[in-house]
Amino acid sequence: MKNCIVAQSGGPTAVINSSAMGVLERNSEMKYYDKVYAGINGIEGILQEKIIDLNSLNDDLSKAFKYTPSSGLGSCRYKMKDFRKDDSDYKKLFKILDKLDIQTFFYIGGNDSMDTVYQLSEYAKEHNLTTQFLGIPKTVDNDLVGTDHCPGFGSAAKFVATVTLETYLDSSVYPTNGIFILETMGRDAGWLTASSALARIEGKAVADFIYLPEAPFSKDKFLTDVKTKFQEQNQVFIVVSEGVRNENGVFLSNLNSDSALDKFGHIQLGGVCEYLKNLIIDNGITTRVKSLELGVLQRCAMHCASQKDIDEAFEVGKAALKYSTEGKSGFMVAINRLSNSPYLTETILFEAAKVANNIKYFPVEWINNQGNNILDEALEYFYPLIEGSPNLDLINSLPRYVKLK
Amino acid sequence: MKNCIVAQSGGPTAVINSSAMGVLERNSEMKYYDKVYAGINGIEGILQEKIIDLNSLNDDLSKAFKYTPSSGLGSCRYKMKDFRKDDSDYKKLFKILDKLDIQTFFYIGGNDSMDTVYQLSEYAKEHNLTTQFLGIPKTVDNDLVGTDHCPGFGSAAKFVATVTLETYLDSSVYPTNGIFILETMGRDAGWLTASSALARIEGKAVADFIYLPEAPFSKDKFLTDVKTKFQEQNQVFIVVSEGVRNENGVFLSNLNSDSALDKFGHIQLGGVCEYLKNLIIDNGITTRVKSLELGVLQRCAMHCASQKDIDEAFEVGKAALKYSTEGKSGFMVAINRLSNSPYLTETILFEAAKVANNIKYFPVEWINNQGNNILDEALEYFYPLIEGSPNLDLINSLPRYVKLK
Repeated sequence: MKNCIVAQSGGPTAVINSSAMGVLERNSEMKYYDKVYAGINGIEGILQEKIIDLNSLNDDLSKAFKYTPSSGLGSCRYKMKDFRKDDSDYKKLFKILDKLDIQTFFYIGGNDSMDTVYQLSEYAKEHNLTTQFLGIPKTVDNDLVGTDHCPGFGSAAKFVATVTLETYLDSSVYPTNGIFILETMGRDAGWLTASSALARIEGKAVADFIYLPEAPFSKDKFLTDVKTKFQEQNQVFIVVSEGVRNENGVFLSNLNSDSALDKFGHIQLGGVCEYLKNLIIDNGITTRVKSLELGVLQRCAMHCASQKDIDEAFEVGKAALKYSTEGKSGFMVAINRLSNSPYLTETILFEAAKVANNIKYFPVEWINNQGNNILDEALEYFYPLIEGSPNLDLINSLPRYVKLK
Repeated sequence: MKNCIVAQSGGPTAVINSSAMGVLERNSEMKYYDKVYAGINGIEGILQEKIIDLNSLNDDLSKAFKYTPSSGLGSCRYKMKDFRKDDSDYKKLFKILDKLDIQTFFYIGGNDSMDTVYQLSEYAKEHNLTTQFLGIPKTVDNDLVGTDHCPGFGSAAKFVATVTLETYLDSSVYPTNGIFILETMGRDAGWLTASSALARIEGKAVADFIYLPEAPFSKDKFLTDVKTKFQEQNQVFIVVSEGVRNENGVFLSNLNSDSALDKFGHIQLGGVCEYLKNLIIDNGITTRVKSLELGVLQRCAMHCASQKDIDEAFEVGKAALKYSTEGKSGFMVAINRLSNSPYLTETILFEAAKVANNIKYFPVEWINNQGNNILDEALEYFYPLIEGSPNLDLINSLPRYVKLK
């Protein structure tokens, strides 16, 4: 019998461990692999032989781990070089995988991880190696192509919508309310920001304006909109994505502060709300402007997760194991939505090559003509993804989260 | 029959509406007052006769309102003048209360609201007026004297402890982890910051250092501590209160940025984590420093509230109504803890005058000798306050919150 290995990469989500436990669970059912190993800190750790045996987890620990947020197997942002230029990492990796008798490598991650899956499967093909590589999607940004949505997104969307409601109420209490700006993640795509449109009180959306990277931002239009709305209702609630750009494609956050690049050349963002705040104040609309960056909270808030999202993360993990028994390699396991009500989905395979370096944008037809809000047509897409709340194990009234040794 | 009025003041909490509904509920049981009015936007709104009749709420709406976070009756930060110098507001207010045949005014608020309760009851006494004034405590800061703890605190503490766990896990995933700084509210007292000590994984506290306003901050000690811990475990998790001061009593946030005063002369804080971040980077410990200000989230997160806190907020509201039937005036309803396990409490009355302009600090005997963490002795105090989770009504998988018309 052969073995398999699972690892995690990129930014954490609340449900990424559920996918790893799905791989383990399906193998318990099928008994296809002898051992399910985990690479610690993704491919970077595997190259350093930081590997543990997941079969040693007892039922209690694997269940607790399934409900523990963030990348419990550790993560990395390690960029594999093009093997046609430098194959040293590849040689080293396959030596390690061979030593452990690994037939399949499951990589739970986003865009960059799917690129790694693609590169490794291509290398294997070119060298007539039978090792298989399968990708399992995760990202709170929901911006992977080929899949209806990404595990991790539903929980993040639920948190964003929930705190949109709560901060709206918090910012509505004074006789002279001001302007509140909530900043969400979303470097390229506005899915997460758009989910704030779910926040409704008695059917009415609480966000007055929602700005996504997909709609070019006009300073003049913004100031007119905000000024008019403020005069009308003495309060404005704004949700904005960190990745909003102006008409020239320049990130608003760059107009405000210095920027830095991460290892993949992505610009590290933050501070859009500061930019908007200054804009409002400088233009004399009001000085009562509060802002809040949700930061990492939105990607790790298991306490506010969607049970549907946890279940789906688990299911894509299980499906990945099943597809591996069919000899598949170089694919990402994707979710195909069959219908909204009843909500029905199936898992399918999608070429990892097509996921890598691509972005699935929020549909422009779900953005209003003015580019400052979301249309109700989008809601049916979101609703099923945030359904249900996990019944977390508690210790002293707080969630019981675990770390693997 | 006479009437009563309830109003809210100061910063919102997740459970402040529960106290208002407690007043209403107890009156339904006792049928002591004919009408229970609510002043909108606290005393400022009452002076403008912004008043509604709470008896018109049906059961469904009053239950939903009880579980709606933030000050649903509106709030204010209106400072009553000393009536011996300027009694114009007082005359106006008593005229309005008389017109509505108000026997008792219930004011749900913090320090400043208890000052208002005291001033109004003194004015009534000096003018032989029989109108009664009772305070109902609320504050996420937990810094009111005379009460074991304040409604609103337990829910905020639970949110802080929960997100301490989750952001700790989020900040622990990379091979080279950095330093994470979580900033909580707490201008004068460190109760909320200290509640992060509840965040434990397998019994071990996740916060390496916790800094409260009660322990003077030493820059040198901080840098030594953080450097040593970072070398030891390649990761440091810090929780800090917005109100931390250095050995000269200067707010750290003031060393960083400009400050502004609110209407009561309090300094408006924020930005301590930015100060610490710069300190760490400038001293060459590491450039990998992330920070997060929890901001208003910690005071409005009903989705993560403590059921015990909701219940206690309701009970102090009910008790206030009962005490009013006994003719009491000029008091705050306080919670007296009789025992930790089983957790037993009673409500008592405490002079509003003694609450006003006083602060209940976090006990120094619960802070470690080094002034950089909380002792386990504090935990028994916290545990009962975060017990239980509300089973919120949902609409499309999100909490159903309501606004009164």
